[in-house]
Formats: sequence, structure tokens, C-alpha cells
Amino acid sequence: MNSFGRIFRVSIYGESHGNGLGVVIDGALPGVKVDLDEMIEELKRRKSGGVGTTKRIEPDTPKIVSGVFNDYTTGSPIHIMFENTNTISKDYNKLKDVYRPSHADFVANYKYQGYQDYRGGGHFSGRITAGLVAAGFLAKKMLPFNISAKLVQVKDHIVTTEEELDKYLETVVEQGDSVGGIIKITVKNMDVGLGEPFFDSVESVLSKLIFSVPAVKGVYFGIGFEGINKFGSEFNDMIIDKTGKTSTNNSGGINGGISNGNDIEITCMVRPASSIYKGQNTYNFKTNKVEELIVEGRHDACIPRRAVVVLESVVAIGLLDLYLVNKSKKKD
Amino acid sequence: MNSFGRIFRVSIYGESHGNGLGVVIDGALPGVKVDLDEMIEELKRRKSGGVGTTKRIEPDTPKIVSGVFNDYTTGSPIHIMFENTNTISKDYNKLKDVYRPSHADFVANYKYQGYQDYRGGGHFSGRITAGLVAAGFLAKKMLPFNISAKLVQVKDHIVTTEEELDKYLETVVEQGDSVGGIIKITVKNMDVGLGEPFFDSVESVLSKLIFSVPAVKGVYFGIGFEGINKFGSEFNDMIIDKTGKTSTNNSGGINGGISNGNDIEITCMVRPASSIYKGQNTYNFKTNKVEELIVEGRHDACIPRRAVVVLESVVAIGLLDLYLVNKSKKKD
Amino acid sequence: MNSFGRIFRVSIYGESHGNGLGVVIDGALPGVKVDLDEMIEELKRRKSGGVGTTKRIEPDTPKIVSGVFNDYTTGSPIHIMFENTNTISKDYNKLKDVYRPSHADFVANYKYQGYQDYRGGGHFSGRITAGLVAAGFLAKKMLPFNISAKLVQVKDHIVTTEEELDKYLETVVEQGDSVGGIIKITVKNMDVGLGEPFFDSVESVLSKLIFSVPAVKGVYFGIGFEGINKFGSEFNDMIIDKTGKTSTNNSGGINGGISNGNDIEITCMVRPASSIYKGQNTYNFKTNKVEELIVEGRHDACIPRRAVVVLESVVAIGLLDLYLVNKSKKKD
Amino acid sequence: MNSFGRIFRVSIYGESHGNGLGVVIDGALPGVKVDLDEMIEELKRRKSGGVGTTKRIEPDTPKIVSGVFNDYTTGSPIHIMFENTNTISKDYNKLKDVYRPSHADFVANYKYQGYQDYRGGGHFSGRITAGLVAAGFLAKKMLPFNISAKLVQVKDHIVTTEEELDKYLETVVEQGDSVGGIIKITVKNMDVGLGEPFFDSVESVLSKLIFSVPAVKGVYFGIGFEGINKFGSEFNDMIIDKTGKTSTNNSGGINGGISNGNDIEITCMVRPASSIYKGQNTYNFKTNKVEELIVEGRHDACIPRRAVVVLESVVAIGLLDLYLVNKSKKKD
Repeated sequence: MNSFGRIFRVSIYGESHGNGLGVVIDGALPGVKVDLDEMIEELKRRKSGGVGTTKRIEPDTPKIVSGVFNDYTTGSPIHIMFENTNTISKDYNKLKDVYRPSHADFVANYKYQGYQDYRGGGHFSGRITAGLVAAGFLAKKMLPFNISAKLVQVKDHIVTTEEELDKYLETVVEQGDSVGGIIKITVKNMDVGLGEPFFDSVESVLSKLIFSVPAVKGVYFGIGFEGINKFGSEFNDMIIDKTGKTSTNNSGGINGGISNGNDIEITCMVRPASSIYKGQNTYNFKTNKVEELIVEGRHDACIPRRAVVVLESVVAIGLLDLYLVNKSKKKD
Repeated sequence: MNSFGRIFRVSIYGESHGNGLGVVIDGALPGVKVDLDEMIEELKRRKSGGVGTTKRIEPDTPKIVSGVFNDYTTGSPIHIMFENTNTISKDYNKLKDVYRPSHADFVANYKYQGYQDYRGGGHFSGRITAGLVAAGFLAKKMLPFNISAKLVQVKDHIVTTEEELDKYLETVVEQGDSVGGIIKITVKNMDVGLGEPFFDSVESVLSKLIFSVPAVKGVYFGIGFEGINKFGSEFNDMIIDKTGKTSTNNSGGINGGISNGNDIEITCMVRPASSIYKGQNTYNFKTNKVEELIVEGRHDACIPRRAVVVLESVVAIGLLDLYLVNKSKKKD
Repeated sequence: MNSFGRIFRVSIYGESHGNGLGVVIDGALPGVKVDLDEMIEELKRRKSGGVGTTKRIEPDTPKIVSGVFNDYTTGSPIHIMFENTNTISKDYNKLKDVYRPSHADFVANYKYQGYQDYRGGGHFSGRITAGLVAAGFLAKKMLPFNISAKLVQVKDHIVTTEEELDKYLETVVEQGDSVGGIIKITVKNMDVGLGEPFFDSVESVLSKLIFSVPAVKGVYFGIGFEGINKFGSEFNDMIIDKTGKTSTNNSGGINGGISNGNDIEITCMVRPASSIYKGQNTYNFKTNKVEELIVEGRHDACIPRRAVVVLESVVAIGLLDLYLVNKSKKKD
Repeated sequence: MNSFGRIFRVSIYGESHGNGLGVVIDGALPGVKVDLDEMIEELKRRKSGGVGTTKRIEPDTPKIVSGVFNDYTTGSPIHIMFENTNTISKDYNKLKDVYRPSHADFVANYKYQGYQDYRGGGHFSGRITAGLVAAGFLAKKMLPFNISAKLVQVKDHIVTTEEELDKYLETVVEQGDSVGGIIKITVKNMDVGLGEPFFDSVESVLSKLIFSVPAVKGVYFGIGFEGINKFGSEFNDMIIDKTGKTSTNNSGGINGGISNGNDIEITCMVRPASSIYKGQNTYNFKTNKVEELIVEGRHDACIPRRAVVVLESVVAIGLLDLYLVNKSKKKD
């Protein structure tokens, strides 16, 4: 459902075109300094504005409603809220009967019996991930690890510089189409021992969170699918010192579901946004035939660009929860 | 931890070389016929014996301790137990100080402060998955969907017939090495509407379970990583009738984290088993230097062969839980 | 922590003197009409204003931020928020070092290492229960049962009419003291079959919720403590027809933790509010001696009066969750 | 359902007349010595044999199946099993159509659609609590607190010595009737700071567990219902030193749902066992009329006598879970 975590618990709510959205964070450590400007900087990494991102530009100013007192976390639930200000909802009226291909429109209508807020995808909007970034920002403050994500590929374009990516995306935008990408996440300075067999293995917890980010369709850890041609003798990572450091890191820092102290390496595949400006055929539930649909509204041509910080954030959320669970068992 | 599920709850316990292992299944539907012979047949799919599987052959006879009365589930917790009978634990004595590369030995020793059962991997053993197969067997009986998995690739060998695979694996066994593989899972006859945004999306729930199966290092849904070169206009699945059927199934039967009624398609990467007969270098924590280790014990050269039914089973477990949650909200 | 529920999930946040407080309700049924005026009426039952209630009068106007669209629940998380408007926080400055007897000040300071919001009890304030009333209001709409609570005793005063109670409470207010009370909750029109052994028995689930309401110190079901002098033959409720109706209801509508279709009967003891106007001795952590404390701020002399609707609400929340879990297992 | 706990998780299964019953304990600390003889001693406290207890005497020898290695907990799930040996199931055949008053027979039959194991109450049997005692035994080893429970009253008989109680109970047994009792639980040497607002207050967590023990119908903390006639000024506990010690303990060691370091004091009401030897009227669902029922089988005349250690155990289980959650947030 819309909550994650055993001890550090994150609950999200909101819609794309409603009053707003937000996150309630329960189980946060008390006494952690919260710098609102720094949080705003982090949220900017998720904002649109660059080439290939939507023309709907929201200020995304976080309002801290509770759980922070005199600039420090109190240990009580932290509620961070974002208002919606830039909504043009009339774009979505026709989507009541004609569902965008590969979007959540059809399933939402079926599951919620026609009561869902269909404007801009409602609760299924990627916009809801702003709350995850705010929560991830706090999680990073509470963790001793260093988490970073980067976009390494967009469609068949290998990302080198931002300028070249902009140039490439201009051609995509021109065509009114969209592209997906590959994002790599690395966690440095990891502890040994996070992860709880079997169902809360590091891979289980992080993949659950990563696949909750809209548009992610594939995840692997370490060398993953690319290691399929290796024998066991080639895949195994040789331990070379007493900290558990390994010569290679094909396992991506995780053995038996537990972190081994080497860097955690994760690779995610983000599909191209389903909303595009190009005409597409889909079934019209009013006329009962397949017809061409031009999706109005404002869309991202390159959603992976904005997903980088979201994926970084959910990894922080998941690792903090595992960190706290692990800490509860440590000898005093 | 070792329990999964919101309504249909599966808890596993046990060790490779202890008294045994098992599964407690809470929240099962009452009134479902349990045919023990059929369960034994299903468990045989996980058993060793074929080329590339371990020489440790366990009868794996399930003992139903509770929750079944007069051959029907009662609605109370079902406990299914497996005894260990074929253990040769002396093989493992030297692993107290020398950890097998890429195995859980090192992390287990660190996390459990030296108290873990190190024999045969203890609780980290793939042997514990017998309980998942038993639970999955029951879950399939309680679900209207059709779930099947198959091994499509082993290292660079594309699986065509069992005979050719056997022949290929003989060469691997000869070398004392191990190989991984690619397993594809398909769910047919799916309902529309399973999955709960955001954190219990179908992908989130199933990936969490799939990554809890030892040796899985990668998962994708639908076309996944293979669709990276497609534009959105090519990736999108066109809806072609009022049941929501689509012309293609690049999304793997899931949009916005919710099943859309088309087949669910999942691809998993299983790494080669870390235990091999070949000598490998690793750190010796007693002598404090890197030394060659010959791993004794009995190992699988091709663990993916036995993982097929395990992956099928965890998908059944996850879908049943989502099915019951979804059902609780349906109009009467 | 601050979330309750398996399927119908309620999460609360907020502080007495912060920006506000609220509730996020996940797992609500879609398609339920939400009448804001009616919700405001329900919230009025919790408001101060009567004799024996605090002089801090908050409008408590609920703002529905998400999850309701065109006056109906959508099935997505419902966020309801209340702003704080009438705060006089300077009253609380001296409570940093001197903790009110039997209040949460001391434990909060210890647990949260001095970072807690100490103004008006912060997150420990009874004010946070406004969110529970809003959630309970919605839960009642989604349930076929009839839940009502009433105040039957205040200290040694048996409640007969509101007028007599007012008169009685005037004497309490005059003394600057506070009184507790006994509240009885009845659920009529119950289904047979709610409750999940062992840990989600009806008594387990409801007592967990009831004891989460500040100031509740005792709960019993049916005849409870008053039945201690009965033999089993006197305590047992004779089944008299095929619906399971019983001649007496000493069990309070629950056997083996499961509802039996008779009225659920619950009795709760609410202690007198710890904040009083009378001087009290307590330890001063600055001067390191016991000193008299006059608690400033504005307090309720008769908190049970306002707790009635809160208790009614948490019972609705708990029963709805059990109702949905039970429904998930029903034959179609 | 049949699992409790966030970090220290206890899952129970089994039936009164099936193969057996047991408990799976996940999240236990590693490195805790397990003395089987001592566990057997603890379990004896729950056994029948004394005056007023059932003639069904089970050896209740715990079999530790997993999670303990070389006499120490490993950190992996601990499975403890008890076989049923002394079952006389024919006693129960007639209960398929005629449900014992105030027993779970009727609700179980309705909820589980006739598939429940009706022999001896099946999964509803108090016999399942043996697993709770085993888990509580381990929990006590992992906690720095001192937990004890005692039976203070049986019906109107105030318990002074065991001999007088025996004498009193002989008269009850003679009549073929049953009696309930009052049990008091005290936790000494408590830490300040356990409990998580709102829904995991100490009272919430412990009451949930206590009400999951069959036959408990009332619970209060501290002075509870007996303090109803006190003014706030009399009910409040004055803090008298810097450890938070209070002059009185009307709050039972808990303020705002959090332990304050004083003794936790809990009072529980256990109803008389519903199964008695005396004839009782109940509805016969075959003949469709009210008829006299003589309940065969073997019953406890004084179930509270055996419940003492069970209540002590569930309090240990609940406090350990809260202790570990609290520890996870502590500054290193």
C-alpha cells in the first residue's frame, strides 16, 4: 500500500491535480538538523525545466507541518507537504472513456470502480514521488553511508555530458516521442550486516522500493544480467582482507541478502513515459472501437532524467530502515 | 525478516544441517483440498538428482503438522515440515575461519557474531526454499490464475531440450564449476486490478519475493532491459478491446503497478552457485592471508534448474496475497 | 508507532502547538460519499466548550487534502488536516525542566533526548485524536454496524442528564481539579466472524486502539471484571436460536476472539487529566529538588466528556479493518 | 493473525487434537544461552495436574527444531514444537451440531465454513499457549527487566496459600463448575522510554497480547478502574527524584504510553472456563431447538491457575519487541 518500512516508516498521499501531495515519516531519529534550503536544493534535482522535461513547472516548495521543532527532528512523525499550483485539468476530461496506452488509466478505472481522480493520472502520477525525495533527503542525514545515482544511458545514447544529452533529447522532443534510460546507483562506505533473511534481504527491500517508482521495469544488483556468461569461478568475488573487501564486486556488495561492506551497485531500467504527443491507437470505451488518441496535457520526453534523485532517495529510505533493524540487535 | 504477506502470510525457518526446516502458512483460505501426493510431486521439481544438481539427495517428504483436517485446509495456520536426513556436516568445519567467496559465510559470521549455524550455509541454504514450494503449491490451489516458469538459458547455452541441457551440463560438472541461468515466469488468466500503489505494486511485491530466493541477482517485467532502445511510441501497448487486451505486452501485464489482465511476464537472472569444486583464493581469518580454498561438501553445478519451481512458487504466494487484499475491497 | 491497520490503515501526525495535525487514511473503500458538514458535526462532539472542557477552543475544521474527488472517496489515500490556530505557547516554557506529574513530559524528554516539542504536550497531546475522529467518521460510513459510546460515570457521579453533569462539573472546575470517567461502547447489528486468532482477536485489536487514546487506563469486554464472582455456569451465554443469539451477553459479543453476532459491549476507564490548576509537588531538574508546580496553560477538568466520540471512532477503525480482512476470505 | 511483533516476531500454530503445536520466533538476538531443562521447568508452570486443572496431562516436552546451535541462539528463526500425545477425540464428535455456550465452536464453524478442526477447540484451544510460554521464556532471557505474575483472586476467594486455594477448588470441582480469577503482573527494573506513540503505547502492545490469551476479558494498568473515585490531584504520581521515581504508582509505570521507569503494574481478569461438566442449555443446530448439553472431554475448573505463566510470557514478548524498537533509535 502507500506505506513502507518496519521502523523508519514512510507514507505518501496525494494527486497530480488535487490540492497537493505529501509524505508522513514516522520513526525518524530525533535530534537531526533539518535545513530547509538544502531540502529544496535536493528537490530541485527532481524538478522539470531541462530539455526533455514537462512544461508543467511546480515550485515544489516543501512545507514542514510537524515533527521538526527549532530546526531539529523531534522523533515524532514528520509531515512534509507540497501544494499543487500549476494544474490545467481540462486537458484530462476526455480520458474518462479513452485510456492512454500503457498508462494506469484503464487499471485505475477498473480497480477503483470509476471513482479515481483521473486528472493527470491522479494518485498514479510521478508527481507523488516528491514526497519520496523529501523523505530520502532526511534518510540520508540519518545514515552513515554515501548514496549516489546517475543516468548512464538514454535509449541508445550513452550519457557523457549534459550538453550532449540535451542535444540528443531535442531530437526526441521534436518527434513528440519519449525515451527511457538506465540509472546506476552506488552506495559507498557501507556497513557489513544490513539485510534480514529471507524476505528482507537487501535486494528484496531495495527492489520493492525501486519498483514502486513509476516507470521502473527492471533492476539488477552487481553485474546482474551482464554476468550470465560467467562461470561461478569467474562470478565469485575473492575476499582479500579482513574487512571483507573483495577483488571484484560482481555481487554488488550483497551476499546471501546481506551487505558485505563493499559498494552496493544497482542498475535500474526506466521505461519511456507512456504519455507522448504522437498520435496512438487505443480502445475507446464509449464508441467501442479502436481510435487514434492524441494525449493532451504536458509530458516528460525523458522521465529517467528526473528519476535519478527519486531512485537515490528510495535506496536511502530502504537502507535506513534496514540499518535501524540491524542496530536493534547489536550488542550494547 | 522470515515472514511475508499481509493476509496470506508465509513464515519460513530451518537450517541445512539442523533437524529440519519448514513453513507456517497463516491466512490460508479454509476448505481447499490438499492432496499430499500432488504436493510431493511438486516438491520433486525442486529436488536434486538430474545432471548438474547436488549429490545430497533428500527425500523432502512434507509432513503436514497443522491446519489441514480431513484433507481440507481449516483456515488455521498450516505448518509443513521437512526433516533433514542426509547431512554430512564435517565437510563444513573448516569454514569457521575461511569464508567461501560470494557465499553468506562472511556476512553471517559478522551479523550473528559467530553464533550462526555455519554447516552447509545454515539458514542461508537454498534448502530452506522447500518450504516456499510447499506454500506456493497451496497458493496456486487458492488462485484462479495459471502460473508457470521455465529455464530458457544456462550461461550461454539456450535451453531447447532436457537432453541437450544434460549434455551441456556434463561439461560444466567435469570442470568442477557452476553456471547461472535465465528463468521466465508467465501468469496467464490474470485478473485486472491486483496491486496496491505505491509500495505494493505488483512489481514491488513480486520482486521482493523473487530476490528473497537465493542466487537471484536480476529481475525485469515485460520487455524490461531489452526494451531500452524503443521509443515510447514503440514501447506502449495498444489497448484493442474492452477487456483491456493489448496488441503487444511490453509492459508485462502491469501498468501503474496494477495488473491489466494481460499475461504477467517476468524474467529472472540466477547467478552461478558460489560453491564450486575448483580451488579459489579467499582470505583466511586465522592465518590472516589470502589462501586457496577447496570447498568440500556437495554442490549444485546448475542451481537455476532447481530454482524454476521456487520462483513459480513465490510468484503464486505474492499474487495470492494481492488477490486477497484486492478482494477485500470489492463491492459485494 | 503512529499507524494502525492491515488493510484499512490510519496514520496520524501533528503537535498541539505546531502548525497542525492530521490523519492519512490508506486502504479506504472507493465510492463512499463524504459529506464535509456531517464530518464537522461529528468533530464537534470532540470539541471543547461545555462545562469541564478547556478554554482553548479550536475551530477544528477538517481540510480534505487528497483521496476525495467529486465528493466520493477515490480509493487512494485520504489526507485530512487540521490547523492549529489558538495556541498560547509561552505557558509551556517552564516545562522544559519541571515535568508535570503523570504527564508525558518526563518520558518524552528522556526518549527523544530533549528534542521533543514540549509545548502543550507536543505529539502526546489529546488534540491529535481529532484525526482519529475524522478517520472513524469515514470508517463508520464503510461499515454495516452501528457503533455508539456514552459516558456513564464521572468520578463517583452517575451520569443521568447533561444538566446534572454540568452542575456536578462546576464544582470540580471550581476546585481546579480534574475527574475521570467510565465510557461504555456498544456495537449493534454485528456480523458473526470478525477477528483473527490469536493476536488479532476482536479484543486484541480493539484494546490496542482504545489504549492508544490518551488517558485510558482500563478496558473490559462484556461483563468483564464485574463477572468475577460468577461460576462458569452463570457466566456462559446460552445460544437460543440459529443466528447464534444468546440469552445473556456476558461475553460482550465475542467468543474465542471472534464476534458472535450479539452486541459488542466494551467498558473503558478514562483517568482524570493530569494537568490541573491546583498546585502539585514534582521534581525540578534544574534546582534538583521537589518543588510545587502550578501548571499553566488551559486544561480539561473532565476529559472523558470529550473522549466519548474518540473511543467510538477507534472502535469503528478497528472493526473496519477486521471486516475487510474477514471479507477477503469469504467465498465469492 | 497468528504472528505478533515488529522485530521480535512470534508466530504460533497448532491444534488441540492434531499432530501438535508450536511457535516460530524470528528476530531473536543471537548468542543467548538456551537451557532446555530450564525451559521445561518454565513450561511446567503451565501444565495441568494441580487441583482444578484438566485430567489431560501432556508431557509438553519442547523440541527445538531450529535457531539454536551448540546451546546458543543463532539469530535465525527458532522453531519450538510440542507433540500431542494424550488426545481422546471421540469426546468431541457431537460438537459438530451442538455448540458449547460461550466457547468458540459456533463462531469457528461460521467463520471457517465448517472446515475447522472442532476437536477440543482445534486452534482455539488454550493448549496453543504452550508456544507462548516457550517464546516468553526466551524473551525474558533477552530482557534486562524482571517480570512476574501471580494469581490474587479466584472467584470471590482471595488467594493466600496454595493449600487454601486447593481446598477451595475442590468444592468447585465437586460441583462440576468452573471459576475465573484475577492475575496481577509486575515488571520491575524497567527502563524509561519503551513504547511508541500512539498505537504502540506500552498499554496498546501489552493489552493486544494479553487479550490474545484465551479467557481474558479485562485489563487495567496501575490503579485502573479502582482509581475512578480519585480526583486528578489524587491520581497523579509525584516525581520525587531525577530517575523519575514517583511517590505513588497509580499510572502503573506508564505515562503517555511510555514506560517511566517505575514498576509496570497490570491487572487481568480471566473468565471461568466455558467448558464445564454441569448440564447447560444450548441450541442444537440439527434438531433446531434448545436442548441440554453435557460437555464431555476433560476440562479445567480453574483456568486462571495455568494462565499465570502465559500472561507473564506475553508481557515479556511485548516488552522485548518494544525494547528492540527503542534500542534501534538510541544514540550510539
